[in-house]
Amino acid sequence: MHKSHGASLGPPALLGVPFDANSSYLRGAALAPPLIRQALKCDASNSWTETGINLESPGLYHDAGDLELDGEDGFGLIDPGVQAVLAREMRPLCLGGDHSITFPILTALARHFHDITIVHFDAHPDLYADYEGNPNSHASPFARIMENKLAKRLIQIGIRTLNGHQKQQAAQFGAELFEMKKLPPSDYLKTWCPVYISFDMDALDPAFAPGVSHREPGGLTVREAVHYLHAITGPIVGADVVEYNPVRDVSGLTATVAAKILKELLGVMVRERHSSGETPKC
Amino acid sequence: MHKSHGASLGPPALLGVPFDANSSYLRGAALAPPLIRQALKCDASNSWTETGINLESPGLYHDAGDLELDGEDGFGLIDPGVQAVLAREMRPLCLGGDHSITFPILTALARHFHDITIVHFDAHPDLYADYEGNPNSHASPFARIMENKLAKRLIQIGIRTLNGHQKQQAAQFGAELFEMKKLPPSDYLKTWCPVYISFDMDALDPAFAPGVSHREPGGLTVREAVHYLHAITGPIVGADVVEYNPVRDVSGLTATVAAKILKELLGVMVRERHSSGETPKC
Amino acid sequence: MHKSHGASLGPPALLGVPFDANSSYLRGAALAPPLIRQALKCDASNSWTETGINLESPGLYHDAGDLELDGEDGFGLIDPGVQAVLAREMRPLCLGGDHSITFPILTALARHFHDITIVHFDAHPDLYADYEGNPNSHASPFARIMENKLAKRLIQIGIRTLNGHQKQQAAQFGAELFEMKKLPPSDYLKTWCPVYISFDMDALDPAFAPGVSHREPGGLTVREAVHYLHAITGPIVGADVVEYNPVRDVSGLTATVAAKILKELLGVMVRERHSSGETPKC
Amino acid sequence: MHKSHGASLGPPALLGVPFDANSSYLRGAALAPPLIRQALKCDASNSWTETGINLESPGLYHDAGDLELDGEDGFGLIDPGVQAVLAREMRPLCLGGDHSITFPILTALARHFHDITIVHFDAHPDLYADYEGNPNSHASPFARIMENKLAKRLIQIGIRTLNGHQKQQAAQFGAELFEMKKLPPSDYLKTWCPVYISFDMDALDPAFAPGVSHREPGGLTVREAVHYLHAITGPIVGADVVEYNPVRDVSGLTATVAAKILKELLGVMVRERHSSGETPKC
Amino acid sequence: MHKSHGASLGPPALLGVPFDANSSYLRGAALAPPLIRQALKCDASNSWTETGINLESPGLYHDAGDLELDGEDGFGLIDPGVQAVLAREMRPLCLGGDHSITFPILTALARHFHDITIVHFDAHPDLYADYEGNPNSHASPFARIMENKLAKRLIQIGIRTLNGHQKQQAAQFGAELFEMKKLPPSDYLKTWCPVYISFDMDALDPAFAPGVSHREPGGLTVREAVHYLHAITGPIVGADVVEYNPVRDVSGLTATVAAKILKELLGVMVRERHSSGETPKC
Amino acid sequence: MHKSHGASLGPPALLGVPFDANSSYLRGAALAPPLIRQALKCDASNSWTETGINLESPGLYHDAGDLELDGEDGFGLIDPGVQAVLAREMRPLCLGGDHSITFPILTALARHFHDITIVHFDAHPDLYADYEGNPNSHASPFARIMENKLAKRLIQIGIRTLNGHQKQQAAQFGAELFEMKKLPPSDYLKTWCPVYISFDMDALDPAFAPGVSHREPGGLTVREAVHYLHAITGPIVGADVVEYNPVRDVSGLTATVAAKILKELLGVMVRERHSSGETPKC
Repeated sequence: MHKSHGASLGPPALLGVPFDANSSYLRGAALAPPLIRQALKCDASNSWTETGINLESPGLYHDAGDLELDGEDGFGLIDPGVQAVLAREMRPLCLGGDHSITFPILTALARHFHDITIVHFDAHPDLYADYEGNPNSHASPFARIMENKLAKRLIQIGIRTLNGHQKQQAAQFGAELFEMKKLPPSDYLKTWCPVYISFDMDALDPAFAPGVSHREPGGLTVREAVHYLHAITGPIVGADVVEYNPVRDVSGLTATVAAKILKELLGVMVRERHSSGETPKC
Repeated sequence: MHKSHGASLGPPALLGVPFDANSSYLRGAALAPPLIRQALKCDASNSWTETGINLESPGLYHDAGDLELDGEDGFGLIDPGVQAVLAREMRPLCLGGDHSITFPILTALARHFHDITIVHFDAHPDLYADYEGNPNSHASPFARIMENKLAKRLIQIGIRTLNGHQKQQAAQFGAELFEMKKLPPSDYLKTWCPVYISFDMDALDPAFAPGVSHREPGGLTVREAVHYLHAITGPIVGADVVEYNPVRDVSGLTATVAAKILKELLGVMVRERHSSGETPKC
Repeated sequence: MHKSHGASLGPPALLGVPFDANSSYLRGAALAPPLIRQALKCDASNSWTETGINLESPGLYHDAGDLELDGEDGFGLIDPGVQAVLAREMRPLCLGGDHSITFPILTALARHFHDITIVHFDAHPDLYADYEGNPNSHASPFARIMENKLAKRLIQIGIRTLNGHQKQQAAQFGAELFEMKKLPPSDYLKTWCPVYISFDMDALDPAFAPGVSHREPGGLTVREAVHYLHAITGPIVGADVVEYNPVRDVSGLTATVAAKILKELLGVMVRERHSSGETPKC
Repeated sequence: MHKSHGASLGPPALLGVPFDANSSYLRGAALAPPLIRQALKCDASNSWTETGINLESPGLYHDAGDLELDGEDGFGLIDPGVQAVLAREMRPLCLGGDHSITFPILTALARHFHDITIVHFDAHPDLYADYEGNPNSHASPFARIMENKLAKRLIQIGIRTLNGHQKQQAAQFGAELFEMKKLPPSDYLKTWCPVYISFDMDALDPAFAPGVSHREPGGLTVREAVHYLHAITGPIVGADVVEYNPVRDVSGLTATVAAKILKELLGVMVRERHSSGETPKC
Repeated sequence: MHKSHGASLGPPALLGVPFDANSSYLRGAALAPPLIRQALKCDASNSWTETGINLESPGLYHDAGDLELDGEDGFGLIDPGVQAVLAREMRPLCLGGDHSITFPILTALARHFHDITIVHFDAHPDLYADYEGNPNSHASPFARIMENKLAKRLIQIGIRTLNGHQKQQAAQFGAELFEMKKLPPSDYLKTWCPVYISFDMDALDPAFAPGVSHREPGGLTVREAVHYLHAITGPIVGADVVEYNPVRDVSGLTATVAAKILKELLGVMVRERHSSGETPKC
Repeated sequence: MHKSHGASLGPPALLGVPFDANSSYLRGAALAPPLIRQALKCDASNSWTETGINLESPGLYHDAGDLELDGEDGFGLIDPGVQAVLAREMRPLCLGGDHSITFPILTALARHFHDITIVHFDAHPDLYADYEGNPNSHASPFARIMENKLAKRLIQIGIRTLNGHQKQQAAQFGAELFEMKKLPPSDYLKTWCPVYISFDMDALDPAFAPGVSHREPGGLTVREAVHYLHAITGPIVGADVVEYNPVRDVSGLTATVAAKILKELLGVMVRERHSSGETPKC
């Protein structure tokens, strides 16, 4: 396929990616997709986003189901799975799984869009050259993405575990890394380029999202996260919500929060389409 | 009874309203009153409000016990129950129960006070014309209140589930609706009119108050809520704390938070009485 | 021992003080030290502070183990235990235990440093003349400290349970008491004097730290707490993290938060040493 | 209505009785019916009883929904509600609610059947003349039933809280009371008379059913309970499962157990009908 | 004091021994006494034992409060604390605390009674010569007791962790050790000698008592334990309930079970006194 | 490979099989292996089995790690993974994963041993021809095994969900199916043939093992299960412990129970080897 700005912005397609074999500490994130879907449709909540869009309006988004990753090489199947969504002129909104899935997702997306800006919410930079010898570790996706020039800019928000190695990596890749101790104004997320949003649930404080493999206190509130999501202006060509780990959840709280993030992500993805209608350029 | 400004501002009277038959999704809020009382008197806390008032000072407030709502028509007994409190020249501070109880409470209050301003904390506007056919649903009290002109102003704070129908209802009733994404300054709550405060526990983020039927992430912190309560200046003629659902609580956290809200509500109700001594006008 | 500014700022020494016999309501805080240590070393987190220091660098801090407080008079052994750390030219970073331990810790410290400024994070002022007859109660350490002139200034942050008696005590001792409803700017914590930091886990909101004996809603977020810790500029001569009570914890959340506070405390204690190298004066 | 043996044994009718106003210690049992139904239909279980009956076979039992007990006098509505089921020639299988509901249920049944044998599973005899002044207390239904001669025999199984007063009551009413410390052989439950089964969830040990208001250790295992249920041979004219209290449940365990008891109860009720087809005599 | 059979069997005296410094793995058992007392007096239960005794009858037993073990050498204070109870002609019923407390308790008792038979319920034999160098470890009390000839017989029930060393120790001390896989008939506990009952909560299966430091599946049911307690016939000169660890409890289940064991222990201790009135001989 | 009795009985080899893609209702069992290993080595327990064997004796068993099932066709890799263990003359003791893994395990085993007797502990017969179209479902392994004549006898213990279809399947395959309502005497498990033990954690009652996907009340106690395991006399050529699902566990109880079952399984596997030393025949 010819790489161009010209890919049209079709509807978002929900795509479960139940894969957690690249987790370094604790598996379980592969169990997330059905639980997030269930929370999204819970009778206790409603179908409207805070941006005023009714997600139950026919055709607003598509549910492409979950990738079948058990049969063969799971990790290798993510790129073609996302590719299949793109081939149907839809924009992938992936439910992880661990964070390693973002690299194959971007591999697929970068064939269709260039000059992508990634807005990455996370407690960790995930920029390790490799982690315990695994270059595809969930601690390394953005190193792989930047090395392969799958994105032009990488904006990281919510970081609170920066170490020497990752600081160096961030500098080398030109990452715009914002630690919790100095968050950017929301205007910083205004852009005209194609945007990919990668939301690691541990960007949130564990008080709000205890169901993650790596609980890192001092994180974003849900309100702060939603505020940033609403502030993103560019055409959103894809997104993911990753690292919700049901094994660590408390009373189902984190499933509900993941569904909220998903809902508002759908809201901003759909808003873009409505307001512009155009092909994203940069 | 003659409707007038002239009702004097007696002490607050705690009144349990263990009623949850108008809940749309999950019952349990009727179990709240004894648990909130227990948390209020827990040896681990103290009796002083943040506004410097010792709630154990004799006569500061009265405990009118819980309404007996099982014997006959529960919903129909709320108005006379509140009326009985008002007849003793006390101001009702009701512990729900689901949010449907606010309509009969206001029905009783509006016979004694007019031009009431309602300050309503909630994740939901509760303005449905009816919900699943029930006009007394806990999703509808403020529609009933405004239709019946039981209040002059309705200020809603903390909303994050606005849909098309409720937006229309809010416009029709002139509700001053503030979504979480754009909260008002606390000064906005300065008023000289009689004020009624209706506090739905789900106004708070589920991280702070998991024990609610409808967990809606992205809500107020306890600190923000207390800040707003302290900022209310008008004579407070009544209040409620509703929708604490013990079935969903985690480790008793929400009972403690409900007791905190109750405590600060008592503080501001009593402060008004001390500072003015006068009959509220508008 | 000659009291002087001259004590050098050696490395911090972690010292467990498993003592909770002065708790007024619920014991359990004595169980905290091994659980905080375990959380600090959990594989799910990393060893770098937010201030960019790798705590695993050799010699950065020392672990002096836990005091043996069962054999004899537990409370009486705290002062000599801390003294032993000071004698090795290390700065005590104590893991409680209940808050009563801060008095003997300061007793030891005041032999080495004078003009100490205490920065005290707490929901409660802990200034009771005595509590239920116990002058060493965990509700009284700062009364004892100020009476004995073990510190020059007492800055209290996060208070939300001020009552008449404690207000009076605060005034008498000249405590700079900041309630949650009016927190100081972080610049307020800039000082050139020797600083002691006393961090009661209940300064944090129970949503973040449910594992405390006295849950008091409306507290600091972890982010706010870390922000204040980072803002302290003076030479830090000692610190404590107290009142984590595992009996009340939910899913281990509070152990992780206590370890985070400990980590950032170590970061600021070590930073001082690196940047100044000098003996603290005031 | 003419009292006779002649009432035919129609299908069981599931009838929710969400009433807990006669609970002495803790309310919440009124929340049970929808949760038991949900557990009965959970995809994780199957529809066959241990006695080899597929509960999904059409017409095997009827679901009569829940009584509406909020509108008027709740307790007074139970008798007519059960009466309506009987009028449709169905046998009531009631889901409580607290144990007080068994008195009005038997009141209705005794108009249709006489010489009823009650098989009553419980930690408590529930034979108080009254409890704290309430003759309809959930601690008193079998006193009322026996006084009013609504049953001929009362067999009590699982008792472990016998006191002087209740021992006397049991003797007076001729109750065949079996304490946990001396359970009867299962053959004891063979009878030709009409049988009513009243199953209080606290008959089970709290390890199996923590979700009850009165946890009384040392109770039946689920296996023992099911064994007794299977051993009952008489024509079963009605039954109840009461006192499941979701507020006290742990991880939904007790809802699943209540559904299991319900399932096996349905199995034995239906078996009787299939095997005999006749009207029960004694 | 003159050692004799002649000590009279006074009423049982409840004595809290909040000591857990000899725990090898996890502390917390020192927190148990107030929680067991609270569960014993819970309004949800009643005051009669299964053996037909009303524990609220005046003078039936005495509550001697908790030993103050923080001030000085905790372990050393247990013997004199128990001695003080014996001096008042009462029989100690101690609430641990970890199991190490049984050695000093027996030390005190053996001054008053000889030829004591210990009935010991436990998952572990607790016969280690020492554990990790500590001869007073909670894994060693019965080695100390038997070496010091403080008891004549040691009957151990519920064991399921026998290893080579402890098997040898049991043989050497002539312990009558019954593993879970071969429990004795209850008649085995008939004796005319003075009996001491030591009940380690981990004798019970963790399904019934999760709140213990060492969860060892495959244990006694509460019913089996109560059955054994009721079967003991000798004059009971003392008892303990140890190793309840609230830090590991689930929803307060184990506190309730510990209170049940305590209640039935009181029942059998009091029964002996009533029925015999005589001084125990052997 | 030549099929013979002649394969020698080497040491057991622990082999994790983290696979749950054939679960019908809830995934999560793939997370079990590391958690069971962790519980096995917990400092709170000891290394001796109830049959008197110290599992820490060198060479007693081998840990073959976990199969890597993510890289390629997970299900297809189980047979060769087990084959590799057998090729090293070790006996596989597999940690699931869901129950579907037993089919490929037996496929591998049947190449080395014939006339295998399977002793299968489970709440469910797992004999479905297929489940929701999946012939490899975790509800079908024993249908596949018996069809393929991989075993001579199938003894099923603990069943409590028998339906028409599975009853028919059991009859066709000659399964010796024992429902909970009529368990066999333990002598029934005496055999001289090669034995394979398949232990589904849901054979146990949910009070003992809540951490399973399908909680089915009325199951075995841990003691009953251990009693059966100890009663098996034949040479044990392999075993599995499956269906522990950490997502549903309560306070880690089920991990501890799974480790206990594993421990006793190791004990009986090793005992056989010690006592016979011979090749199993039938």
